[in-house]
Amino acid sequence: MKKVLTLGEIMLRLSPPDNQRLAQTSSFNMVFGGSEANVAAGLANFGMEVAHVTAFPEHDLGEAAKSNLRKNGIDTTYVKFLPGRLGVYFLEQGSGLRSSKIVYDRANSSFSNYDGSDENWEEVLKEFDWVHWSGITPALSQESADLTRRILEAANKSAIPVSGDLNYRSNLWKYGKRPDEIMPPLMELTTHIIGGARDFNQCLNHSFHASEEVITFAFEHYQNLQMIINTQRIVHSASHNTLSANVYTKNSSISTNSIEIQNIIDRVGTGDAFASGLVFGLINGKSIQESLDFGLGAAVLKHSIPGDVLIGSEEEIKEILEGKSGAIKR
Amino acid sequence: MKKVLTLGEIMLRLSPPDNQRLAQTSSFNMVFGGSEANVAAGLANFGMEVAHVTAFPEHDLGEAAKSNLRKNGIDTTYVKFLPGRLGVYFLEQGSGLRSSKIVYDRANSSFSNYDGSDENWEEVLKEFDWVHWSGITPALSQESADLTRRILEAANKSAIPVSGDLNYRSNLWKYGKRPDEIMPPLMELTTHIIGGARDFNQCLNHSFHASEEVITFAFEHYQNLQMIINTQRIVHSASHNTLSANVYTKNSSISTNSIEIQNIIDRVGTGDAFASGLVFGLINGKSIQESLDFGLGAAVLKHSIPGDVLIGSEEEIKEILEGKSGAIKR
Amino acid sequence: MKKVLTLGEIMLRLSPPDNQRLAQTSSFNMVFGGSEANVAAGLANFGMEVAHVTAFPEHDLGEAAKSNLRKNGIDTTYVKFLPGRLGVYFLEQGSGLRSSKIVYDRANSSFSNYDGSDENWEEVLKEFDWVHWSGITPALSQESADLTRRILEAANKSAIPVSGDLNYRSNLWKYGKRPDEIMPPLMELTTHIIGGARDFNQCLNHSFHASEEVITFAFEHYQNLQMIINTQRIVHSASHNTLSANVYTKNSSISTNSIEIQNIIDRVGTGDAFASGLVFGLINGKSIQESLDFGLGAAVLKHSIPGDVLIGSEEEIKEILEGKSGAIKR
Amino acid sequence: MKKVLTLGEIMLRLSPPDNQRLAQTSSFNMVFGGSEANVAAGLANFGMEVAHVTAFPEHDLGEAAKSNLRKNGIDTTYVKFLPGRLGVYFLEQGSGLRSSKIVYDRANSSFSNYDGSDENWEEVLKEFDWVHWSGITPALSQESADLTRRILEAANKSAIPVSGDLNYRSNLWKYGKRPDEIMPPLMELTTHIIGGARDFNQCLNHSFHASEEVITFAFEHYQNLQMIINTQRIVHSASHNTLSANVYTKNSSISTNSIEIQNIIDRVGTGDAFASGLVFGLINGKSIQESLDFGLGAAVLKHSIPGDVLIGSEEEIKEILEGKSGAIKR
Amino acid sequence: MKKVLTLGEIMLRLSPPDNQRLAQTSSFNMVFGGSEANVAAGLANFGMEVAHVTAFPEHDLGEAAKSNLRKNGIDTTYVKFLPGRLGVYFLEQGSGLRSSKIVYDRANSSFSNYDGSDENWEEVLKEFDWVHWSGITPALSQESADLTRRILEAANKSAIPVSGDLNYRSNLWKYGKRPDEIMPPLMELTTHIIGGARDFNQCLNHSFHASEEVITFAFEHYQNLQMIINTQRIVHSASHNTLSANVYTKNSSISTNSIEIQNIIDRVGTGDAFASGLVFGLINGKSIQESLDFGLGAAVLKHSIPGDVLIGSEEEIKEILEGKSGAIKR
Amino acid sequence: MKKVLTLGEIMLRLSPPDNQRLAQTSSFNMVFGGSEANVAAGLANFGMEVAHVTAFPEHDLGEAAKSNLRKNGIDTTYVKFLPGRLGVYFLEQGSGLRSSKIVYDRANSSFSNYDGSDENWEEVLKEFDWVHWSGITPALSQESADLTRRILEAANKSAIPVSGDLNYRSNLWKYGKRPDEIMPPLMELTTHIIGGARDFNQCLNHSFHASEEVITFAFEHYQNLQMIINTQRIVHSASHNTLSANVYTKNSSISTNSIEIQNIIDRVGTGDAFASGLVFGLINGKSIQESLDFGLGAAVLKHSIPGDVLIGSEEEIKEILEGKSGAIKR
Repeated sequence: MKKVLTLGEIMLRLSPPDNQRLAQTSSFNMVFGGSEANVAAGLANFGMEVAHVTAFPEHDLGEAAKSNLRKNGIDTTYVKFLPGRLGVYFLEQGSGLRSSKIVYDRANSSFSNYDGSDENWEEVLKEFDWVHWSGITPALSQESADLTRRILEAANKSAIPVSGDLNYRSNLWKYGKRPDEIMPPLMELTTHIIGGARDFNQCLNHSFHASEEVITFAFEHYQNLQMIINTQRIVHSASHNTLSANVYTKNSSISTNSIEIQNIIDRVGTGDAFASGLVFGLINGKSIQESLDFGLGAAVLKHSIPGDVLIGSEEEIKEILEGKSGAIKR
Repeated sequence: MKKVLTLGEIMLRLSPPDNQRLAQTSSFNMVFGGSEANVAAGLANFGMEVAHVTAFPEHDLGEAAKSNLRKNGIDTTYVKFLPGRLGVYFLEQGSGLRSSKIVYDRANSSFSNYDGSDENWEEVLKEFDWVHWSGITPALSQESADLTRRILEAANKSAIPVSGDLNYRSNLWKYGKRPDEIMPPLMELTTHIIGGARDFNQCLNHSFHASEEVITFAFEHYQNLQMIINTQRIVHSASHNTLSANVYTKNSSISTNSIEIQNIIDRVGTGDAFASGLVFGLINGKSIQESLDFGLGAAVLKHSIPGDVLIGSEEEIKEILEGKSGAIKR
Repeated sequence: MKKVLTLGEIMLRLSPPDNQRLAQTSSFNMVFGGSEANVAAGLANFGMEVAHVTAFPEHDLGEAAKSNLRKNGIDTTYVKFLPGRLGVYFLEQGSGLRSSKIVYDRANSSFSNYDGSDENWEEVLKEFDWVHWSGITPALSQESADLTRRILEAANKSAIPVSGDLNYRSNLWKYGKRPDEIMPPLMELTTHIIGGARDFNQCLNHSFHASEEVITFAFEHYQNLQMIINTQRIVHSASHNTLSANVYTKNSSISTNSIEIQNIIDRVGTGDAFASGLVFGLINGKSIQESLDFGLGAAVLKHSIPGDVLIGSEEEIKEILEGKSGAIKR
Repeated sequence: MKKVLTLGEIMLRLSPPDNQRLAQTSSFNMVFGGSEANVAAGLANFGMEVAHVTAFPEHDLGEAAKSNLRKNGIDTTYVKFLPGRLGVYFLEQGSGLRSSKIVYDRANSSFSNYDGSDENWEEVLKEFDWVHWSGITPALSQESADLTRRILEAANKSAIPVSGDLNYRSNLWKYGKRPDEIMPPLMELTTHIIGGARDFNQCLNHSFHASEEVITFAFEHYQNLQMIINTQRIVHSASHNTLSANVYTKNSSISTNSIEIQNIIDRVGTGDAFASGLVFGLINGKSIQESLDFGLGAAVLKHSIPGDVLIGSEEEIKEILEGKSGAIKR
Repeated sequence: MKKVLTLGEIMLRLSPPDNQRLAQTSSFNMVFGGSEANVAAGLANFGMEVAHVTAFPEHDLGEAAKSNLRKNGIDTTYVKFLPGRLGVYFLEQGSGLRSSKIVYDRANSSFSNYDGSDENWEEVLKEFDWVHWSGITPALSQESADLTRRILEAANKSAIPVSGDLNYRSNLWKYGKRPDEIMPPLMELTTHIIGGARDFNQCLNHSFHASEEVITFAFEHYQNLQMIINTQRIVHSASHNTLSANVYTKNSSISTNSIEIQNIIDRVGTGDAFASGLVFGLINGKSIQESLDFGLGAAVLKHSIPGDVLIGSEEEIKEILEGKSGAIKR
Repeated sequence: MKKVLTLGEIMLRLSPPDNQRLAQTSSFNMVFGGSEANVAAGLANFGMEVAHVTAFPEHDLGEAAKSNLRKNGIDTTYVKFLPGRLGVYFLEQGSGLRSSKIVYDRANSSFSNYDGSDENWEEVLKEFDWVHWSGITPALSQESADLTRRILEAANKSAIPVSGDLNYRSNLWKYGKRPDEIMPPLMELTTHIIGGARDFNQCLNHSFHASEEVITFAFEHYQNLQMIINTQRIVHSASHNTLSANVYTKNSSISTNSIEIQNIIDRVGTGDAFASGLVFGLINGKSIQESLDFGLGAAVLKHSIPGDVLIGSEEEIKEILEGKSGAIKR
């Protein structure tokens, strides 16, 4: 079976129950989450083998975070225990016309102290067929940027496809480097870039006005690039979105239908569910259209599931794409 | 006051809270439920006298199930304690484009071991004015089929109206008999059949293409038949349905308006709420149109109530039918 | 900073969790609430100084109610401890086509025994710039009516603006007086009346047919009157409303856009949130249009927040008014 | 089977979860409870037929209170719906050296408005073999005292045994009568008085110094009296008590062993559990010693059960009395 | 590192929260548990490699049960998906003088249908150093007895130590075989038998009166036997036990001190925790005394942990054994 | 009324419910807590005026922390909003022989960045009569040490009594200073030192062997010192402690009785409750014996209350000291 390597920080996610605001709660529901580990969990959910590279502090919650990866079916061989904190993010679930809100408290995590210099990544990657990273990792610290670079260079040498979700976050990049100092070489090592014009602009300190400009620029400058993928989200309210997705190759573009999503339960991790569905399709030899549709269906399904992580079957996603979901399944 | 006899299995229903998937929960909300007992509870809710025929295992949860019938205002004179299990069903509440999902674990229940041969049903029925059964019961075991037959034959001899909800379930019928070996004689003993073309086809091993064919066939073959009733449900999503209902007599057909239902909280038991509303109307001398409308309103109201069972007043249903519900009632 | 004085009863609000009906719950979520204190909390939430005049029984829950005011940022200098009960209201949260429902149990509260004769209100009001009351207070008891009158007369003498939300409740007024015996003199002392034609009719025992008649009548008869404000709510279902608001001055009328509100979480206190937003705008010198819009945005936001009380920022309200809310805020 | 009639008020009991204080909770667990109905539930739990005389307000919680009686196996023929409130009591569960604490809010209940003049109690009592009342009822209102008197007089005429738990509560008796004006004639109509010297003193405005004086006095003055029963409780802490019980007849006294009770979960209703066990024994022809022991065992068991009401089997109580409880029962 | 193979059924455990009785709950806390898997989890908790042999039904809860094994650090290579149910057990947590109570609903599980004939166990055991089984497995079905025999024979051929916890349960053994028809050959293949005189008597249909007789008999008849181990539990109440343990070898006996355990939170799985601690000691070359003490400490610690499974460090157990636990660890 | 100033960090405390271990929970109960703020809350609980000096980050949880101070009756005039985090501590509640366990995550808090140089503390202290600090504050950062020094110097100049709880924590002091470099001058400014020999040794890098040596040393070296106070805790288990307290003045020593505490619910904050009771007594002119007893009673009561903070009345503490607590208070 094909095997995927992912890397990234995992945080403790704390959410007030029952749509309460942070300011009024007296308890938190807790899950573990992080963009790239969410992708890993999505892939494992579809039956793929996946290993995740990360680091935790050596205390009970660090151990619990590792157990949770195992529970999600993720290989924890490359999980380290290092000095530092377990990052936390507080998530206030919005509803209707109230936006969801995240308060991050992730500085100085164990993961951000890990530069990956302790592993021979070329050796490691011999048993892997795909690598997935996101732009959140190099935004955390120089060590995290180095870790990303090391793994991507190893993947490149081994000719392993690399998907990268640019995932630009303005509240990161606080360690003294600008995105355009760090991201371009990482993007060059990436075969499948997930990101829209805004992400490209922020990562490259550019000002593309339209997607076409981005596509043209990227395929000109990045030799390894095979696809640029992005999703379009129309936000009617915190409970009601419309979602679609596109793939651009050097010579073609492919789109999905738009799917209207109501009664959203948890939007967090829907982009990661998309990435896991897309990569699952591509790595298993589905067509680009099928892979993109499957990614979209995975993302749509995730909106109905509490927590950071996709749980669901290929059949459920197929029913969503065919507009046949909603009845009671007995 | 008119009194109704219902018969059927009651299960422990276990649902993860807060729209969690079965695979992620660490607790279950618990209620007792079962199609025919839900009808009984609906009738009791409207103030009718109802007794329910069922059987439970003799342990604390069997006792609790019986207490729950009493709580719902149901006469438990014909509740037996017999060897066997308390059937369980796990219900995952869907939302938006994720379907609700039921995992049944009901084999070998105490109820499925009860054939009703210990009671003189003609004697019993002297104090009743209506009998209600569903196609789930004869699908469980030969004993359950025998129980149904015994009670229906007694009702027939006493000229008591009998409503039967065909309720075809493909995951039952595992005791070596096909529906068409068991259901036709039971349907002949039934004066009010609730079911659509699909139910008739499955129960009779037929292939009617349209409702009209069903109607014609049924009124030709079943001497006691007074009405065929069915509901039409359009499933936009797990949270959004549109519902209407029809009655066919030998010579006429009557329909309700369609009602759009959003923000569905619990779809389970809505068909049973419909049956209870309909029977309540018919037995109390309301017109067919009024009875059908009332059944529809009861079904619509049930979508907003957690659990298997309808709780609500005639006034609330009337407001729903008049499009006047939704404001705060002080 | 400008400071507001509010007065009114605070009750213990008990709601079944998870949209359960009152008849099926085995626990209650608890908050403290009351129309005028909700307005006070909304104003404090926006950073205003507010003091609330009320009375509680001298036991642990009375103390807790007072602590809760402090938590909400409200000055409790004028909170008394008096013989009587803590009023209770049971709130059943509706959903979809099931209305929310309130069962009041508020008779004989400590507050209803307080007539305000122990304070020199002119002296007290020296540090205040606005007074807010509602028609619920004089409907409770002669003492409460006297309290209202005393404070309004003092405000009038000190030329302090007074907003009054007519808030007619048919299940009150049980102490032997009719609204039209009590309300007119209080309305005359009010500069900003919040209420629609129905409220005016009930309070004045009149039968105005249209808003214009109300406006004309009111500006003719009430010398102090500067504005009449009301909201228009279209109730599609318990989960889906459309809201707009209007201000009438002697010579002009100003309206907001309509805002459609879906996936309503808690409708209680939305009118109070409106009042707090409106008064916040007016007292801080915003234009009438801005103040009215802000009130509407505050009311809309409140629909998404569990409890009686508005929690939110000016920025969030601005985003709602600009149609930009709903995305995740990181 | 022997049948018992009980009478008394039922309240909504609201308790903070997890040993929180009233001042810090944001939710309440809810049960229905009341001394005499607790006795009825205990008797029904042991398989007796019991009917309870009470009254509720006609709203959803009043209906729920009635359903709860049915759930507990109690005949609700004599449950009335009358104007008034549903009484409430707030229970803060203590632990260790912190006492449990009750805040009553029960004035003006529907029950306190019911004087029982609508029933022919002699006629009613034809199907009953025992009556149980408590001193709480006549302490509520003149109507409640009249209700008690009417039923006790009817029992006396029909020579039905009457047990009465004096249950003196200093925070009641607020309707203008003193206990010694009301209680003596009721005690004269009682065959089995449960109460200690303090209860007798308060009810009779006497000052007996020792139990013997009480016994002598009572058997001299009350012609119908057959037994005086009381329990001795040593309170080591809110979690740790020692309990024993005594019966005095005209010529003898009988005692139980002392049982030490640790890790108390809920002390409320333990006296009622005692009464139900005692009456169950006596009415079913057990010896006084057996009945008293059984009452004690029932009381001890109740300390381990959340809520007002005893749930347990005769076998469990027997194991407690034999010192054999505590192992896992599979 | 040494690796252990365990085999046995895993059930869904459902417990009412907050010490409620089964008859009064409206929700269940849920964990997965089973004696041998609990031992596996305990060993994994101490850092051992463990694989567990079991079978689940192929539905969401079966998958969740498998995920839970992974979460607990257990290798799931030998987890099968087979027709049948997921066994359930309902656990009512006792307290004080109320015993805990288990209602089993485990018949016809997927595991009970698995006979292990699909694996070459000699081959499998090449990577293992210890096998652990319990007497629950052969009590379930002929298939389960066969599975046990197959694995034990393979272990015997490979000279791998085998520990077996006799764990006699009278409510099993329903498939037509008596314990003494099945257990003796399995006991002969076992090097470390955990069990007391009662277990031996039941398994062998014998009537040993004292431990010494058991010891003598066993070492005479079972060639492979190295140790007999048992625990002594004095049950003061459901919340208060005293525990000690003994090991008998052919020529010696070794005992622990007694440890008094108060405020018990969850007694289930404490015997399994003992076995895991003991085996952990033995397999890692600790002395018998150290291993036995460690087992006892593990068992004691488990009494304080909700759920079936031990979670704790060697250091915590050491502190318990040294009487130094109880202070806050910062 | 006398007024107290306290200073110190407040953290978000996150505890798994129902005695779960950190490694197994899926939710956290949340309160705010911190040693000195707990003392402030205790004093406010007894009716004192208190202001607390602290700093929070400017986000929703920082605001909630401030609201919580207000709720507890604490003056928030000296609460700042500064860059940095809100410190977190994870508390696992032990039980029986399992210790409670705290995982701190408090580095880089907003409070630790506050050096108090923005206030004129002599001016501020004009309205205060007592200052309370703890050794946790100077252990956090140089800024926190400076803040403490500034306030203590101002108190000293104004001749205001200063109580200081040495509260040595080995996992702090990470900013490059040793306790003995920082603590001695702060102790010299303190009139009432709470601490045992271990605390003195750690703070002074000394090795006193007995309390007497500490007392002699301290009264010799610290001119302002009036009392040394400490508590003696015997830990039988996490659920069972024995507590007593002592005061040493220059010439005398005073002790309390020992109180045995069982069924402990929450040990955190019991030392702070002690300090609040002691200071409450001393500042209000009670005798040293009375003050010490009251502190002990407050500490004992706190063991029964969930959360960091004491809630209780003087009467309750008096009953504990008199051995009269444990019965139900109605």
